[in-house]
Amino acid sequence: MKYEISNRMSGLQPSAIREILKATQDPKIISFAAGNPSSDAFPVQKIKKITDDIFEQDPIGALQYSVTEGYTPLRETMKDLMHSYYGVPKRDFDELIIVSGAQQGIELTTKCLVNEGDTVICEAPSFIGALNTFRSYGAKLVGVELEDDGMNIEKLEEALKTNKNARFIYVIPNFQNPSGITTSLEKRKAIYELAKKYSVMIMEDNPYGDLRYSGEYVPSIKSMDTDGLVIYLGSFSKILSPGMRVGYVMAPRELLQKVIVAKQCSDVHTTILQQMICDRFLKENDLSEHVAMLRDMYRKKSALMIGEMEKQFNPKVTFTRPQGGLFLWCTLPEGADMMDFCRKAVSQNVAVVPGNAFTMYDTDVTYSFRMNFSTPSDEQIVKGIEILGKMTRELF
Amino acid sequence: MKYEISNRMSGLQPSAIREILKATQDPKIISFAAGNPSSDAFPVQKIKKITDDIFEQDPIGALQYSVTEGYTPLRETMKDLMHSYYGVPKRDFDELIIVSGAQQGIELTTKCLVNEGDTVICEAPSFIGALNTFRSYGAKLVGVELEDDGMNIEKLEEALKTNKNARFIYVIPNFQNPSGITTSLEKRKAIYELAKKYSVMIMEDNPYGDLRYSGEYVPSIKSMDTDGLVIYLGSFSKILSPGMRVGYVMAPRELLQKVIVAKQCSDVHTTILQQMICDRFLKENDLSEHVAMLRDMYRKKSALMIGEMEKQFNPKVTFTRPQGGLFLWCTLPEGADMMDFCRKAVSQNVAVVPGNAFTMYDTDVTYSFRMNFSTPSDEQIVKGIEILGKMTRELF
Repeated sequence: MKYEISNRMSGLQPSAIREILKATQDPKIISFAAGNPSSDAFPVQKIKKITDDIFEQDPIGALQYSVTEGYTPLRETMKDLMHSYYGVPKRDFDELIIVSGAQQGIELTTKCLVNEGDTVICEAPSFIGALNTFRSYGAKLVGVELEDDGMNIEKLEEALKTNKNARFIYVIPNFQNPSGITTSLEKRKAIYELAKKYSVMIMEDNPYGDLRYSGEYVPSIKSMDTDGLVIYLGSFSKILSPGMRVGYVMAPRELLQKVIVAKQCSDVHTTILQQMICDRFLKENDLSEHVAMLRDMYRKKSALMIGEMEKQFNPKVTFTRPQGGLFLWCTLPEGADMMDFCRKAVSQNVAVVPGNAFTMYDTDVTYSFRMNFSTPSDEQIVKGIEILGKMTRELF
Repeated sequence: MKYEISNRMSGLQPSAIREILKATQDPKIISFAAGNPSSDAFPVQKIKKITDDIFEQDPIGALQYSVTEGYTPLRETMKDLMHSYYGVPKRDFDELIIVSGAQQGIELTTKCLVNEGDTVICEAPSFIGALNTFRSYGAKLVGVELEDDGMNIEKLEEALKTNKNARFIYVIPNFQNPSGITTSLEKRKAIYELAKKYSVMIMEDNPYGDLRYSGEYVPSIKSMDTDGLVIYLGSFSKILSPGMRVGYVMAPRELLQKVIVAKQCSDVHTTILQQMICDRFLKENDLSEHVAMLRDMYRKKSALMIGEMEKQFNPKVTFTRPQGGLFLWCTLPEGADMMDFCRKAVSQNVAVVPGNAFTMYDTDVTYSFRMNFSTPSDEQIVKGIEILGKMTRELF
């Protein structure tokens, strides 16, 4: 039997990150390749206690089928927090639903908005999980160069002018994956105004927003959304647990009604126990205190990695100094063979993610790679950076 | 802002079942409309104990990101059970992955196999969740009449001859949803041979297979699959808990590799805690004993409903006598206004699902509706059937 794969999926290959994750299950590898939050950050005892309480008080609720939109108390909690904690004005046209991780929010809204051949405008580089989802619905990806403070706005307008069939602009405004870059307030406003001018939507993906270690808080694009243009994606993966697969989408109700139909087709509903855990966790804990603990933990790791890189790396190799998140973006001198560098690093037991995992097309030239500081131990950071640093001094 | 919905999604409406489920949250309604397993069937104490143990022994494993294919021990457990318990020979070309409910298995394989305009051949009537998923990828649905022992085989061959772009035949061989009908061994063999002859695949959806109350076990089509034609979907929803959203797909590895890429785009992986719970439950319990308990429970409910219907219903109204599963299919006299009957039933506080939820097209004529006996209490069954019976005697 020959298995004929659909056009939309036939070109898609397994995500380089996932494949590398597998390779790095080898315990002797120091992995800077993951995107995992630190396991030390999981509030295990609190989650255990909450789970016990749920099985004591509402076991049937935790095990029976539930509604596609999500667990009502969690939706209400998140609607309140989006307003009181995340600063998004309450607007009549907006609604909020629960999804199986923000990844599912990307998938479902793409399925509802993008016809084969339509354009999605992305930061270049961008998150591979989103890019692959756009590809899997036959979208044409148009990348807009990412500068230190967000997308190049002239180039964004050019892309919007050129691509009449653009459906939305995909933005990770805080501590972007993979670059670590934060989009400035001015550029957020400019992106919003351009989206309005050209009648395209914005998909604002904000998994890392809570993890700011330095600098000033910047309001979300959703908070400016007086016109109902913004699909906002939030996640519990970085603040509570990624294995639970709980995220949420805040967007105009009219669009979400269709997203709910798509979710019925996809997984009926998100695991109900995990939704109940998230809701109780938010009700029983002060989110800002919990997040402050996470920030302290990651701030140290991030500072350690950057400090070691500043000491060890050849100055010809540049890198971003993110104000938050989990990643930084390291760029070899122009003309360097980045893939060869990454392969050599693995052969010396250090894994990073080659930058072309994050470009619009495999063939786009990049001299960069992504490094994660949240997962490795302090010792691994010091040791791994020493190895990479030595490589940069010898090779360039 | 006008939200332009993609072609694939623009025609799709919210599932009638989900909408009815919401309506039936009114506690005064006796609902025969759900598809829920009985809450009495959930092994709450065992699941609670297992969850405690997991949080004690491997909390990080339960909360951190995991691999897309699924929790390795559960995959191994299920591969063994597919062979030793479900009678599918071990074949080199087959693989098994975990998905977020069998619904996700339907979604992902459809995404990987069906181009817009391709045909999916279905039993008529069939499960609305699958039909909507096929529709959401632009599939053309071709229904083949379901007889008491499965699809009409001549009509199936006709459909395969006529539709050169058919990608697979969707079959629920055991206690079908909505009809309750079981496909005979002869017809399973015939369906397999036709799939082979016309080089199309078979999607065998078997959520109810364990719930047989009478009659002889019939081997799965997957067990005959020497040629690698069959995508087999299994689920923990009916034997353990539907709210956990854990299912599995057994299919040729070559196809599953693409399905895994689609799953990366969809939800990265299935909630890991629930996968661990399923694995431990299967290891710590005798599946056949657990299933025997479920069978006893549902056998009584099914017999009660059928018995009451035989006493109360106008003999002009016919219905199936399923050998298992959760549903039976009730047919009003030809020419009756089925929708009107269903509406009148709700106005008398009894909900059933109108049959056109399960037809290929909304406009297909059907005099039937679906009834569920697993969710209502014994008292509700007696009372609800009395009300419906009176209606049938007065109206026809």
